[in-house]
This record gives sequence, C-alpha cells and structure tokens, in this order.
Amino acid sequence: MNAPTLKERDEKETARLEAFSDGVFAIAVTLLVLELKLPEGTGGLGRRLLEQWPSYAAYVTSFATIGIMWLNHHRLFTLVRRVDHWLPVLNGMLLLGVSVVPFPTNLVAAYLGHPGERVAVSVYGGTFVYIAIAFNALWRYASSRHRHPPLLRLPHDAPEVIAVHQQYLFGPTIYLAATLLTFWHARIALAVMMGLAVFFLFPPRRKKAEG
Amino acid sequence: MNAPTLKERDEKETARLEAFSDGVFAIAVTLLVLELKLPEGTGGLGRRLLEQWPSYAAYVTSFATIGIMWLNHHRLFTLVRRVDHWLPVLNGMLLLGVSVVPFPTNLVAAYLGHPGERVAVSVYGGTFVYIAIAFNALWRYASSRHRHPPLLRLPHDAPEVIAVHQQYLFGPTIYLAATLLTFWHARIALAVMMGLAVFFLFPPRRKKAEG
Amino acid sequence: MNAPTLKERDEKETARLEAFSDGVFAIAVTLLVLELKLPEGTGGLGRRLLEQWPSYAAYVTSFATIGIMWLNHHRLFTLVRRVDHWLPVLNGMLLLGVSVVPFPTNLVAAYLGHPGERVAVSVYGGTFVYIAIAFNALWRYASSRHRHPPLLRLPHDAPEVIAVHQQYLFGPTIYLAATLLTFWHARIALAVMMGLAVFFLFPPRRKKAEG
Amino acid sequence: MNAPTLKERDEKETARLEAFSDGVFAIAVTLLVLELKLPEGTGGLGRRLLEQWPSYAAYVTSFATIGIMWLNHHRLFTLVRRVDHWLPVLNGMLLLGVSVVPFPTNLVAAYLGHPGERVAVSVYGGTFVYIAIAFNALWRYASSRHRHPPLLRLPHDAPEVIAVHQQYLFGPTIYLAATLLTFWHARIALAVMMGLAVFFLFPPRRKKAEG
Repeated sequence: MNAPTLKERDEKETARLEAFSDGVFAIAVTLLVLELKLPEGTGGLGRRLLEQWPSYAAYVTSFATIGIMWLNHHRLFTLVRRVDHWLPVLNGMLLLGVSVVPFPTNLVAAYLGHPGERVAVSVYGGTFVYIAIAFNALWRYASSRHRHPPLLRLPHDAPEVIAVHQQYLFGPTIYLAATLLTFWHARIALAVMMGLAVFFLFPPRRKKAEG
Repeated sequence: MNAPTLKERDEKETARLEAFSDGVFAIAVTLLVLELKLPEGTGGLGRRLLEQWPSYAAYVTSFATIGIMWLNHHRLFTLVRRVDHWLPVLNGMLLLGVSVVPFPTNLVAAYLGHPGERVAVSVYGGTFVYIAIAFNALWRYASSRHRHPPLLRLPHDAPEVIAVHQQYLFGPTIYLAATLLTFWHARIALAVMMGLAVFFLFPPRRKKAEG
Repeated sequence: MNAPTLKERDEKETARLEAFSDGVFAIAVTLLVLELKLPEGTGGLGRRLLEQWPSYAAYVTSFATIGIMWLNHHRLFTLVRRVDHWLPVLNGMLLLGVSVVPFPTNLVAAYLGHPGERVAVSVYGGTFVYIAIAFNALWRYASSRHRHPPLLRLPHDAPEVIAVHQQYLFGPTIYLAATLLTFWHARIALAVMMGLAVFFLFPPRRKKAEG
Repeated sequence: MNAPTLKERDEKETARLEAFSDGVFAIAVTLLVLELKLPEGTGGLGRRLLEQWPSYAAYVTSFATIGIMWLNHHRLFTLVRRVDHWLPVLNGMLLLGVSVVPFPTNLVAAYLGHPGERVAVSVYGGTFVYIAIAFNALWRYASSRHRHPPLLRLPHDAPEVIAVHQQYLFGPTIYLAATLLTFWHARIALAVMMGLAVFFLFPPRRKKAEG
C-alpha cells in the first residue's frame, strides 16, 4: 500500500542518479574558478592580469566543455527509463572524468607558454578523450539490445538511438585528433579544443528531422 | 505508455535547468568564503582582522549580488514554460559570469588600498556588467516573439513581460556607470556597487500593480 | 491552462528556496574539510597530526553546528506554505552567516593555543550569535500576524508556533553567553560551544506533547 | 486543506534528507580534485607528473569509495519510508565521515613513499572503518524492531533486511583488516583498499534471489 509502484520507483531512481550527476557537473564547473590565481610578479596589475591569458583561455574552454557535457548527459538521461546495477557504475566512471577537469585545466594555465606546454595540453586533451569514451560506454550499455527490460524509453534500433550512436562515436575520435595535434603545436591544439566546445554548442542535424 | 506527456517533459527539462543553475549559484556564493584568508603580519589578531576590511566588504557585496542574481534568475524561470536548444546555452553564458565572481572578489580584497585598486574594482564591476548583459540576452531570447511555440508562459507583449524588459535594461547601464566611476575613485565605485546590491533587494514597482 | 495553480506555484517557490538553502548548507559543511591542512614541522607524522587537535575540534564543532542549523532550517520550512518578497532576503542573510562559518573555523584551528585565541574563539562564537539572530528574524517575519495571506501553514498563535518562538529566543542568548565566556577562558568557551551542538541534537520537549 | 497528508510529509522529509546527503556526497567527491597539485621540482613535466602517482592512486580510490558509499546510501534510503528525530543525526555522523575523506586522501598523496606513510595509510583506512561503522549504526537504527511506526518500508525481519544486516557487518571488519595490514606493508594495504572499492562495485548475491 505504501510501496511505490515499479514505474514510480524507476523514475525516482533515475531522477536521483540525474540529480547526483548534476551536482557533480555543477561543482566541477564552479570549482574551475579556484584555478584563477591572483597575479604574481611586479608591474601594473592590468598588465599582469593580461599576461595570465592562458588561465582565462583554459577556464573558458573547460567551462564550455563541461557545460556541453552536462547538456549531453541531460539529453542522454531523457531517454533513460530505468537504472540497473551497472548504469550508476558507468555513470560514475564518466563523473570521475568530469570532476578531474579542474586539474588539467590548472596544468594548462600554469604551463602554456612555458616548457612542458605540450605535456600539459596533451593531458588536458587526454582527459576529454577519456570522458568521450566514458560517454560511449554509458550510452552503449544503456542502449544495448541485451538489457531486459530495456533501460531506454526507445527501442535499441530506433532512428533517434542510432543517431546518438553516430554522434557519440565522433567524440573520442575528434578529441584524440586534437590531442595528437599537441605534438605538432600545443597552442593550435588548444585552440582546436576551444573550437570544439563552440562547435558542439550547435544542435545535431537530427534535430531537424524531429521538428 | 511509459513516455511522459509533452507538458511533463517540458516541465522536467525546465526544472532540471533550474536545478543545475541553482547548484552553480549556491556553489559560487559559498566558495566566496575561500577568499577570506587568515591574516598575515604581526600585531594583535583583532587589529589584523580589522585591517582585512576590504575582504569583508568584497565578500558581502559579492554574496548579496549573487543572491540577488539568483532571485532574479528564479523569477525569470517562473515565467519560462519550456526550454529549447539555445536557452541552456544562453543560461550557461550567464552562469559563466556568476561562477567567476569569486576571482574578481579576490582581486578587490587583495588590492583595495594598494596600487592597482582601480584595475581591481573595474574588473569587479566589469564582471557585473557582463552578467547583466547575459541576463538581458537570456531574457530577450526567451521572450522573443519569434519563438514558436513560445518559451514563456505569457505572451511576448504582456505588461509583466514588458516590465521585465525595462527593469533588465537598467542593469547593464547602472553597472557600467559604477564601473566607470572607478576611474574617478575606486572606493566610492565599490560603495556604489554595494549600494546597488541593497537597492536591488527592494521589489520592483510593478509588484504593486500585481497585488 | 498551462499556468500552474496558485497553490502549485507557492509550493514550487518554497521548494526551490529550500533546495537552494540546502545546497548552501551542504557546500558550507563540506568545504570545512579544506581547513584541515597537512601538518607542517618535523617529527613523526602521528605526533604532528595529534598536535593539530584544535583543527579537529573546530571541524567537528562546525560540522555539528551547521548540521543542526540545517535541521532547524528544515523544520522551520516544513511550516512555511508560501514565500513572499522578503522571506528569501531574510533567508539570504541567514545563509550569509552559514556560508561564512569555514572562515572562523579556520581562525580557531590556527590560533587555539597561540596568542590571539581569545579573539579567534570570540569571532567564532560571534558568527553563531549572528546566525541565531538571523534565524529569529526569519522566523519572526514568517510567523508575523501581519502577513496577508499568512506565510505559515499554522496560525500565528498556534501552540506549535509559540513553542518555536521560545526555543529560538534561547539561541542568541546562549551563544552570546558562550562568546562572552571567551574573555574568561577561550578553551572552556569552545568546549561550551561544542556542548551546545550536542545539546541541540536532542529534540525539544514540545515534541512529547505532539506525539 | 492546505496541509499535506502524513504520507506526503513523510515522503518529503525523506526526500529532503536524501537530497541533502546527495549534495554532501557530490561535493566531497568533487573536492577531491583540489588534492591534485601542480608538480613541483625540476625536470620534464611528464616525468614529474608520473612521480605523483600516489596522488592519482589515492584520488581514484577515494572517488570510487565515496561513489560506492553513495550507491549504498541510496539503496538504504529506497527502503526508508519515514524519518524520525534521530535518523538525520545518525545520517549526519555518516556524512561527517564522508566529507572528511579529502583530508586523509591528501595525507596519503603527500606521504606515500615517504616517512610517515604507515600513519597516513592507517588514518585513511581508519576513516573508512568509521564510515562503515556509521553505516551500520544508521541501518541498525532504521531497521530496529523498536521503532513505532517503523522507519522502513519492510518489516524488520524481512529477508531483504536480514541480507543487508549481514552485508553491512562485513564492512567494518574488512576495512579494519585492511587498516591493520598497514602496519605490515602500507602500499599493499592501500592496494587492498583499492581492491575493495572495485569489489564492492559488484552487486551482492541477494540480487539474484530478487530477480
């Protein structure tokens, strides 16, 4: 009598996993500000603040990238109907990547323009490669035809599901390419990563078909 | 059968965007405390704590300003019925400004009364100009007559919507004026920004008409 | 048709204010850990960790005190039916006190057993006096007979409301007394504040009458 | 008329306690990143980053352990129907342990491979012993036959409840064993703690019976 129905319990479980994930995204994105340090050295404050531009570039890129990941996570979970044992584990592996972002951001801010900038930018890019792979693992698991009952609201071969497959596969590839670019030119690689953040702000084509 | 209705989905989407934003506001406002440092130097602790008054002034101003922004964000979203692709992006640009506030707060705390205080206070004011502009962009987009179906619960020419237009336009102007004041006198400019936080605590006139 | 009913809107408003407050409480309580620093100096790590006992005492006291405040805030809001313009402002003044707690905690951890411990402990106690006063202001405003329609679910002269009046008045007095104790003996004053945290864990008498 | 029913109030209370706890878990897990410091010293950045491996080992172990605790907390609360006075207090004692985890993580990161590593790893393990005991206290209290009306959705002697009893008793024992291992070999003890985090990712046997 007091026990919620199965559907209610599924929705509560999914909602709590979403809320926890949202918390981690929101904290990770807000902790980035701690990486912005007061300028050291001597000279006018204005000039010293401007010399810290790598900090700002890294801050904005990380902020935008985590923001986009949040949007993608959100869209993914609008398709999720219920949560089983392993989905939170895979989600946790994704959140591990998201919550670590302030560290490589800090590295880039400290080393851009100094010896070690290649290592710094490639660790930064590598973090995004990891996150993109974790997104694929989460999605592939959730949309697998082998889950009974299914975790998604849609069948595993629905056009919308297939479209997400293709969109997600793109992620690791493109971030790996940007990371490899680092060995040629660290700043251009970073600029490409910033560009990707902007690029991913635009809605995927499939949205048109939906409308 | 399991799929939620369109209205339910719209409400869930809006609620999740609000909850994420709330998280960022709450974290940004609470992280401000990390800017309050243990006093250095020698002498009685009481005196050294009092000498840190710029830290406290900056802390309270930032706390109040972020708090008011949260209230405004909250009021704005009570008018929002649904979320499209770009609303979260514009909201993210607003949150970028909100979550960066601890950095300029830190600058003001460190440089008030030292060379560079003008730069520090104008960066601080500039952050609020940015946030006020981002609020206008978010609101103008949400209330535009060109959104079909509309994102707001009210028609784009409802008196309440027009009133918010006018109230919001005021924000960038007034914060820009306060920022420009910095070049004349940094501490007075900061005092004006504190005054604005207090001023905005009072409800807009239109509330009367509502009641 | 799409507009929520007045009651739904009131509940949503109240829920969002509660959720935002919960976020600030949860963050403030968790940020306290940043005040626990790695031990400096030389000698065995175990001994140096033990020498940091004032940090742990301050940590546990602050954690318990914020936790109890959260519980009280929670209980207060179970009586709140709707939110007007000023309730969030008064709530914000309370949250200002809650979110600043890590700073005086840090002070106590750094100065207990050193010159300045009286100042440190009295700033710490003073923070709790401020919070207790802010709680009273919030409650008095919410339960005032002059709010139309009322903000509480219960009439302003219900026995439960009167009981909270009396319980809350106790807070500023007792914390002020503990703060004044500092001028006699700082460590005993701190021990009293720890004792208060434990004392307030016990349910108020009025609960019996309810059951 | 406006007052929620008892069942609604119970659910709201439980939901708010869960949400607050989720916040603390999410913040504690995300604050861990602040323990990852920029490498000091000289030499190639890559090599210096690799030399920081104890930081990464401690980070991943703490992240996974807090993540698993969150999952367990979540499962425990799916069985909780209502909250009384003491349940939040016991929950707070659990959250105290969870939110302190960044400190011993920091200790391990700083002392692994240096004098004091035994103390550091045993403080780390001791934190998990404390948390495991707090979990038992919370669960034993919630499932006690002496609560009227009961706090759980299931009777105190339901097979599922008994199974959780047994599973939970295992926690303090195993973490205590891992902590004692420290006095023999600190790194192996740490490796065992990492292994436990992975081990606990797998669902308990009783799940089979449920399916």
